[in-house]
Amino acid sequence: MRDTFHDELDQIGAALIEMSKLVGTAMHKATVSLLETDLTLAEEVITGDDKVNRLHQETEERAFDLLARQQPVAGDLRVIVTGLRMVASLERMGDLAVHIAKIARMRYPEPAVPAEVHEIMRQMGEVAQNIVTKAGAVLAGHDIQLAGELERDDDAMDALHKKLFTVLLDDWKHGVEAAIDVTLLGRFYERYADHAVSLSRRVVQLVTGELPTAGDLGA
Amino acid sequence: MRDTFHDELDQIGAALIEMSKLVGTAMHKATVSLLETDLTLAEEVITGDDKVNRLHQETEERAFDLLARQQPVAGDLRVIVTGLRMVASLERMGDLAVHIAKIARMRYPEPAVPAEVHEIMRQMGEVAQNIVTKAGAVLAGHDIQLAGELERDDDAMDALHKKLFTVLLDDWKHGVEAAIDVTLLGRFYERYADHAVSLSRRVVQLVTGELPTAGDLGA
Repeated sequence: MRDTFHDELDQIGAALIEMSKLVGTAMHKATVSLLETDLTLAEEVITGDDKVNRLHQETEERAFDLLARQQPVAGDLRVIVTGLRMVASLERMGDLAVHIAKIARMRYPEPAVPAEVHEIMRQMGEVAQNIVTKAGAVLAGHDIQLAGELERDDDAMDALHKKLFTVLLDDWKHGVEAAIDVTLLGRFYERYADHAVSLSRRVVQLVTGELPTAGDLGA
Repeated sequence: MRDTFHDELDQIGAALIEMSKLVGTAMHKATVSLLETDLTLAEEVITGDDKVNRLHQETEERAFDLLARQQPVAGDLRVIVTGLRMVASLERMGDLAVHIAKIARMRYPEPAVPAEVHEIMRQMGEVAQNIVTKAGAVLAGHDIQLAGELERDDDAMDALHKKLFTVLLDDWKHGVEAAIDVTLLGRFYERYADHAVSLSRRVVQLVTGELPTAGDLGA
């Protein structure tokens, strides 16, 4: 039988997995709202972030409470402190999905993304989706193999980000406003992926005791 | 006489103050490198970030070690965990200064910033400077009054950021590449200020036991 302490630790873990699902769904909806000029979806992402923020706050409180009431040993302590950092990354990922949805909403009923970069944005959204799904699975199962895949997905995101700049700098015909939107959108997708990679690295760090570099993960 | 535990806690506090000075200097140099097209300064910011990263790592290790070896009571525990988060914000502020310096370096010997937005960028650099200096003072002295000023500086940063977009969207004649650079630069200054505000809010939270909103600080 598990003791109360480890039950509470499990609840923190469950909250992290739940948050990874919420910010994954948010990013999916944000991408669709952007590419299909869907105001309802954009609004859903923006209002839905409240739930992520609430989970963030609750999980922080639970972790602090656990630290204060119990006297966790070194290993458990590391898990709790790492959990506190992961919850901060997840909260930030939710914010980044909101930033994307807000650009979609701001330009509605016009599309924020010109057709020329539609496909790159779609791929960035898809890679973001893959990364957050894998990060959730790493969180749930401590699967280090998957962490390696995730690093490669992040390389794919960086490559798409570079490609986006190539399009922007090659005879862009859609004006400065669209260039600004696309620049910021690219940055938001890239940062979202960075946070997901950081989540997965922290799990690896907990499992192996060391913070891996991209090279260690075969990426 | 202080005990060893509180001596070590003081060392973590000293490292945070030291890091706030380093990332403040880095941001100052980054702004000058950008506005005066100074490659040497840009390189200094980029290579100098190693020191920030080293302090980040050392302080993290010290905090984990302290958590593991001692069994800190609730209040001390909160200080250490908050310290871990502040060190992460400071590390990120160093990265943002590096991002700015890298744009200056990438465009050298051409200036990255057209004369038209020179003054806004100068002011963003100045506000960033004010904010990080005050955040360092809040860290050093737990001066909540200063935390209120810092929130107002952040409002000034947001206003400058909006002004920057107004210029970009009003008959911009400097091409897409400069628009992208200026968009990203604006974002980097704004995020730097956000992190500095978050640092200061965490100090207030430690002192008062509550996380303040902008309203509580008279901002």
